Amino acid sequence: MMEQTGVEQTGVEQAGARRGAEQHDQDFLADWAMHSRFGAVEGANGVDRQAASEADGQQRKWFARLLDSHGFTVERDAIGNQFGLLELVPGAPYVVTGSHMDSQPTAGRFDGAYGVMASAHACFRVAEELRADPSKARRNLAVVNWFNEEGSRFKPSMMGSSVFTGKLPLTDALATRDPHGVSVKEALDAIEERGGLEGLDVASYAEIHVQQGRSMEEDGVTIGLVNATWAAHKFEFRVTGEQAHSGSTLMADRRDALLGAARLVIAARELVDRFEPGLLHTACGELNVYPNSPVVVASEVGLLIDLRSPSAEVIRAAHASLMETVERVRFEDRVEIEVVAEHSWDQNPYPEAGVELAREVAEELGLAHDRVMTVAGHDSTNMKDTVPTVMLFVPSVDGISHNLKEFTRDEDLIAGVNHLTGVVRRLAAGALSGAPGSD
Amino acid sequence: MMEQTGVEQTGVEQAGARRGAEQHDQDFLADWAMHSRFGAVEGANGVDRQAASEADGQQRKWFARLLDSHGFTVERDAIGNQFGLLELVPGAPYVVTGSHMDSQPTAGRFDGAYGVMASAHACFRVAEELRADPSKARRNLAVVNWFNEEGSRFKPSMMGSSVFTGKLPLTDALATRDPHGVSVKEALDAIEERGGLEGLDVASYAEIHVQQGRSMEEDGVTIGLVNATWAAHKFEFRVTGEQAHSGSTLMADRRDALLGAARLVIAARELVDRFEPGLLHTACGELNVYPNSPVVVASEVGLLIDLRSPSAEVIRAAHASLMETVERVRFEDRVEIEVVAEHSWDQNPYPEAGVELAREVAEELGLAHDRVMTVAGHDSTNMKDTVPTVMLFVPSVDGISHNLKEFTRDEDLIAGVNHLTGVVRRLAAGALSGAPGSD
Repeated sequence: MMEQTGVEQTGVEQAGARRGAEQHDQDFLADWAMHSRFGAVEGANGVDRQAASEADGQQRKWFARLLDSHGFTVERDAIGNQFGLLELVPGAPYVVTGSHMDSQPTAGRFDGAYGVMASAHACFRVAEELRADPSKARRNLAVVNWFNEEGSRFKPSMMGSSVFTGKLPLTDALATRDPHGVSVKEALDAIEERGGLEGLDVASYAEIHVQQGRSMEEDGVTIGLVNATWAAHKFEFRVTGEQAHSGSTLMADRRDALLGAARLVIAARELVDRFEPGLLHTACGELNVYPNSPVVVASEVGLLIDLRSPSAEVIRAAHASLMETVERVRFEDRVEIEVVAEHSWDQNPYPEAGVELAREVAEELGLAHDRVMTVAGHDSTNMKDTVPTVMLFVPSVDGISHNLKEFTRDEDLIAGVNHLTGVVRRLAAGALSGAPGSD
Repeated sequence: MMEQTGVEQTGVEQAGARRGAEQHDQDFLADWAMHSRFGAVEGANGVDRQAASEADGQQRKWFARLLDSHGFTVERDAIGNQFGLLELVPGAPYVVTGSHMDSQPTAGRFDGAYGVMASAHACFRVAEELRADPSKARRNLAVVNWFNEEGSRFKPSMMGSSVFTGKLPLTDALATRDPHGVSVKEALDAIEERGGLEGLDVASYAEIHVQQGRSMEEDGVTIGLVNATWAAHKFEFRVTGEQAHSGSTLMADRRDALLGAARLVIAARELVDRFEPGLLHTACGELNVYPNSPVVVASEVGLLIDLRSPSAEVIRAAHASLMETVERVRFEDRVEIEVVAEHSWDQNPYPEAGVELAREVAEELGLAHDRVMTVAGHDSTNMKDTVPTVMLFVPSVDGISHNLKEFTRDEDLIAGVNHLTGVVRRLAAGALSGAPGSD
């Protein structure tokens, strides 16, 4: 009888847990559907929600109400990072988890936004558990919506997490202007998202994001354990020629800045073919012409070129080759080419302890997992240099990213929330940050 | 004695005429110096005076006062062409002479503006002569400052003369918007330059302009007798790719509109080398990228490419070759390329009678002259299809054009005004338009 009863009870408990889990999944999908309406692009499934835009402001207000309805206290810091705070252990440091809700112009609805919503729901679930059994809590919980990760409106990208981690001075960030001359400070004030929170005692950080590549989908991986960032070298070039009548000026007399810039765009693309497939990604996504008139040879073009690779050696070789092209174009097209700004980083590992913790959770949940590198930067790239960090990926269908057609299947979204919940549960119990009894 | 006296009188008359001519030259240079102040770029000798800008408006008000002070009546038509009218023969048609005062952004002070000021002074001198001897007048006089010849702010270029000659509908022109969304109508109203003049009975047209090339300077020619416009083919291309993350998206998956556009920019330049030097000019001066973000592969680029040649055959060969490149880029870079708009013209002659009249005046004044073709378009390109037309050039130092450093020497400016005065004198007496006794 006892065993029978025990079995029956277990059956009841399992069924109850299953119903509870299903309800959690439904709750997530419902909030997710609502969330994707802010800045939705008509006739498409994507969004246009650049940092501190009206749509960003509306979404932040909605998100604040959601956090509040789950008992989280909403605060903003001076650069507009939005936090939902839950104090479970007075005075203890916080497990922070989140991503960013801002988007590129006409982009997908998953990039960043999925990470914030998954984090919110992971925290809601863990909070529910810890309220039921407060003795297990070692950390407090914080959901974060980082300001301006995308950097399309205000440069640089990852602005909010850079200020938070002390890598970018607050005053510089607030003074940055968009192409229309509006400063970050003005834009944040317009949506009332500059706040007074001054720092936060952070125990650990977790972030989940869509992959923005297609290797996980191809390999049948549901949870990516992000173990490193690709190496990268980013350049801002200024090509200077001389204004001239684009019809009457003799070709030999011209010093055409746009011609010089076009040669750099093509050189960057052709560099890729010198290496094994997948070893080098290059891009020029932004290029601005002055005076940009149909009958004037351009006197100045600004353009941004990126080199990215899993190998720092490839980056160095590509960099050297690009600079040879710069010299050749300078000479042959008689234009000046300056590197106005550049920054680079070597292949950059995520802490192994975080990767291992994420692996254990995936094993426990029976989710297909593998170690993957990230090509794109994330706010966790800043956080991992400061605190113990876990970075996770879910698959992107066809790897489509920064595009209205970006897509991740519901089952993967749900698997990601469940996995992140497992990670946050362990972090809240003190994992990675060495709380007593955390292992 | 009679002969002696005769000689003495002639000497006195010559000295008087010389003093009168010197005074005329000084008057011109004084007004010219004043004129170049409107829209002057600080620290440079050039101007920024785009169509219907504040500087354009201020200059038009100053110019109206100048015309008025010489007894000319100032009127504007519905597209903002500014006329100074002097009725000498009631009901007779008008000799119209002028050019444009608008400029490219950061351009020289001579382009167009010299033609308007030379025209005004030529008319002031001829008016003085005809007021002294009204029996010689067969025509009335009109100075014109055409609206928006440059087309840098509002497209197309030569807007005012195109509407005046019926080649462009007025309503289309007024509805055209600049990159900030301001319409021509709004911009003209803001400077109060939209008027009520409805058409003008035009007998003939004369225009003088700086060459914007260096052949006249090299050949020691002071007055260019413009006998034809180069052939041209102008394209507006739209290259369409697909937005993607510029870091993480596999190179093989990308459809990069900016890469495709850069290939067209370079193909246009390389076309030139397939022909004898000077036989083909090509250019791309305007290129716009969407979404123009550092981390997004561009999905759309618009660009304008021009082919110009004295030979229609060269244009056809260059056009065919450019289209082969378009096909190749479509295929190799997997982008769509559309020709959104194009227009072309064959080598386009100026009327021979006008060239001959200008030659006679140059002979009379002892000015070095030669026939030259124009590569650039001018308002006279529109007028010559409608009325007998004379088109003149003075040299440009080093052919520098659409550049703050554009320069023409005072002696050439003065020679041009003197020559144009001779042309206007003959046109006012009925030349080219078949008035009785005009030859």
